[in-house]
Amino acid sequence: MKAIGIIYSPFQNKKDTPIQPYRSHAVGTVEIFEKYQEGLDDIDTFSHIILIYKFHKSKGYRLKVMPFLDENLRGIFATRAPRRPNQIGLSVVRLLKRKGNILIVKGIDVINGTPLLDIKPYVPEFGPGEDIKIGWLEGKIRHVGKNQIRQKALDLIMGVCL
Amino acid sequence: MKAIGIIYSPFQNKKDTPIQPYRSHAVGTVEIFEKYQEGLDDIDTFSHIILIYKFHKSKGYRLKVMPFLDENLRGIFATRAPRRPNQIGLSVVRLLKRKGNILIVKGIDVINGTPLLDIKPYVPEFGPGEDIKIGWLEGKIRHVGKNQIRQKALDLIMGVCL
Repeated sequence: MKAIGIIYSPFQNKKDTPIQPYRSHAVGTVEIFEKYQEGLDDIDTFSHIILIYKFHKSKGYRLKVMPFLDENLRGIFATRAPRRPNQIGLSVVRLLKRKGNILIVKGIDVINGTPLLDIKPYVPEFGPGEDIKIGWLEGKIRHVGKNQIRQKALDLIMGVCL
Repeated sequence: MKAIGIIYSPFQNKKDTPIQPYRSHAVGTVEIFEKYQEGLDDIDTFSHIILIYKFHKSKGYRLKVMPFLDENLRGIFATRAPRRPNQIGLSVVRLLKRKGNILIVKGIDVINGTPLLDIKPYVPEFGPGEDIKIGWLEGKIRHVGKNQIRQKALDLIMGVCL
């Protein structure tokens, strides 16, 4: 596994990043190294893309974690917490624009300088259509916490106005 | 990056695998190595999970590929083709049952023996809600091709009846 590019965001460290992308309206930039640029052809016909990246600031892993939205320890694979056996992260973002090897995206939730591993098109038809249960998150993710307020403040400060 | 488990499926080689998971009703088994078993706690409160794995049968990469559903060359990052710079694959599957370090899943689309890298809960609220464009795939993915027919035959043969 090697970086194929770098994700740039307004978030300089972990405590600034939104807990989940659906809370984020932040705009970021994805730079794909030039040797891979041709692989981006047709990407801008999709409205949303999946970024796969490395949680490069996380060291080691824990098998049980206390998620932000919860008061119980949960198995790491039932969460998106970064300290995982393989530190792979996943975010769906809106693709605003491609210019050569640069993608401008909205809804970014990673730390500035995150190494990019892969990009895939987001196609809802390839996910499940129905009858979805969201486990321990049920009833929690509409919750407006201090982080969401912090996110709004950050958006205002960082200027989400490309 | 290291394998945290193995995905077992009815598909013994590439030509047998369904092109996309939404075409698959195949049942498979995910074995997580025992040292990571505790990390599966709470996973069975979710109906669907995201499997992240390595396309271990793919060597090298191409930046432009001709997808199954198309007659044009497309940038690799606008497709889910396996010969990518980092051979990371992603599938959303239905979780039927957890028993210790074993998950029984439905909708599997990988080759038998695929190395597992990570599992995340599938939470539609963390994806985009609206206004989604699916690019070059528009109008193509309802298409019933020979592969779908093959899939149905395979389902019948392999017995999707756990």
